[in-house]
Amino acid sequence: MAESEHPAALPGAPTLMDVARAAGVSRQTVSNVLHAPEKVRPATREKVERYVRLLSYEPNRQAQSLARNASRMIGYRIQPLAPGALASIHDRFLHALAEAGQAADHHLVLFPAAHPEAEIAGMTRMHRGGTADTFVLYDVTAADPRPAALLGLGVPFVAFGRTRTDTDTYSWIDVDGVTGIGDAVTHLAHRGHRRIAYLGWAEGSTIGDRRAEGWAEAIQRLGLAAGREELQVHSPDAVPDAIRATFQLLERPDPPTAIVTGSDTLAVGAVQAAQQWGLTVGRDLAIVGFDDTPTAAALNLSSVRQPIEQVGQRVVAALLRPQSARPTGELLRTQLIIRSSSAGPAPGRG
Amino acid sequence: MAESEHPAALPGAPTLMDVARAAGVSRQTVSNVLHAPEKVRPATREKVERYVRLLSYEPNRQAQSLARNASRMIGYRIQPLAPGALASIHDRFLHALAEAGQAADHHLVLFPAAHPEAEIAGMTRMHRGGTADTFVLYDVTAADPRPAALLGLGVPFVAFGRTRTDTDTYSWIDVDGVTGIGDAVTHLAHRGHRRIAYLGWAEGSTIGDRRAEGWAEAIQRLGLAAGREELQVHSPDAVPDAIRATFQLLERPDPPTAIVTGSDTLAVGAVQAAQQWGLTVGRDLAIVGFDDTPTAAALNLSSVRQPIEQVGQRVVAALLRPQSARPTGELLRTQLIIRSSSAGPAPGRG
Repeated sequence: MAESEHPAALPGAPTLMDVARAAGVSRQTVSNVLHAPEKVRPATREKVERYVRLLSYEPNRQAQSLARNASRMIGYRIQPLAPGALASIHDRFLHALAEAGQAADHHLVLFPAAHPEAEIAGMTRMHRGGTADTFVLYDVTAADPRPAALLGLGVPFVAFGRTRTDTDTYSWIDVDGVTGIGDAVTHLAHRGHRRIAYLGWAEGSTIGDRRAEGWAEAIQRLGLAAGREELQVHSPDAVPDAIRATFQLLERPDPPTAIVTGSDTLAVGAVQAAQQWGLTVGRDLAIVGFDDTPTAAALNLSSVRQPIEQVGQRVVAALLRPQSARPTGELLRTQLIIRSSSAGPAPGRG
Repeated sequence: MAESEHPAALPGAPTLMDVARAAGVSRQTVSNVLHAPEKVRPATREKVERYVRLLSYEPNRQAQSLARNASRMIGYRIQPLAPGALASIHDRFLHALAEAGQAADHHLVLFPAAHPEAEIAGMTRMHRGGTADTFVLYDVTAADPRPAALLGLGVPFVAFGRTRTDTDTYSWIDVDGVTGIGDAVTHLAHRGHRRIAYLGWAEGSTIGDRRAEGWAEAIQRLGLAAGREELQVHSPDAVPDAIRATFQLLERPDPPTAIVTGSDTLAVGAVQAAQQWGLTVGRDLAIVGFDDTPTAAALNLSSVRQPIEQVGQRVVAALLRPQSARPTGELLRTQLIIRSSSAGPAPGRG
């Protein structure tokens, strides 16, 4: 199909015929310059190329993509907004993907899906239909069905997060939350805290369990673990629940002087509980959140920050490798952002 | 071009030839069933349609879009993340657009752009290249150059927000912030507050100025304006600046008992200033934010909520109208979310 016959050519946009007329050659010659330049004499080729530039002629992108089997589109499921959750990691990641994709001349195509099965079906449809040639999975967890399903369907993807097994069968980028929580505990221990509690999500979530594990490993390593099992409490990831869970810690005969939390939402609950208890955060009780949301910055809350921009760049780099390349996995480090909620020494050490 | 010759057909995905073989007909017959069914005898048509379903054959979406001049893609500039800002309106709107687009079988294609000129150039390129057939402008302000430029370039779009003039030349959806702030002032007046201050952005921003205007109109209407000019303060949209601006109000000989703010970020600053001043928010000082961010919910902060989901739906509805239709404008109402930061009566009225 010649581009000039293209129904997608718009009024005002230069057509292949415009280029042919301007250069004084046939449409076929212009088409050859674009698609089979070796067929055209160098002088003619240069003349046509000059008019392609002068007229800012753009061969239809879709027709191009048909020819080279590449839409240059990355498909990504946009998650439903979780009401009440502070965590903007999904949105930060979306911005990072769009930026990294742009740098590689790829656009991001968003599609909503209500659950993993709908996401798998949507990706398969978009892939077979040519809307996107490659996909990104967000929040891949231990028993996630998506990687195996997409491998079976032949749909190319890169994962942010990873399953417990088969991590050598697909490319993934993950963030080391275990070490991230460990860094927060070490920071508090260096400030002189000895009773460092952990306030995490309800048990059973992979990411939440890993973060709890990070706390347990760190207090063990630092020699603070003796009799400290009771300093671990769990709560749904919502402020009112986190307030109640923090009261459980503060009611203890030997209450903690510092609390590391599994999310900024839980940390906000801990801050409110401390205030209601008459404690000054940062002086009487140290608190560290996770994810460094804008709320953490607004409330001067220390928090463990995931390198989301870097995750976006590494995901796009993995997507662009040839499909024949061996799958790779990369584990990135977090960064501890220290603010006034944990900057002071432990009570009694001032 | 017959779909079976299509280079975009993937290994494993059924081709038009697969359907033809299964149904025992020619490729041309299958193509006719898909594109010119009136040419095919009913019995043959039904047989072919059955195999199209059985094999889950999907005609290439890009080839389809070439044929009907419609990519079914909506182009949208993803804004850079504003560090420190709580306002997730851009991201809420992005989610709303993706959902509303999906309901109309359109995908959202994201592209980053550093400034309005780059956005205009990006949209023009994507439009001429066929990547997206229509676009959405976010945060259109009084002297915005984008609507006129895109009209001149023939690039179809719908605006969220509007310019001061020429609003009959393009379709827009906007939210009535003036009335939104007025509702907050009225709510506080009904609670018995007489000294209601306004803490807004630095003057000169259209949206900020409209919100300030909403406060001024409302206190005038409620008979609370006499000598109240000094109860309006301005601050950059950041927590530390808002704390300082709130201190200016609290230092007055006749300080306000309530503060309406132009954003949740400013409201968080007002809350922190009140706490540092020894005031209990909701009892000694009422505070209302704007945008109902997750932070407002976490801090029990009353806030003016924009109907972003509805904006997304109305924008997509406007995009889907025929290009020959007359441009329309719609002004949507906000909703006041009342939480404990403003739920109590004015001090001295308890």
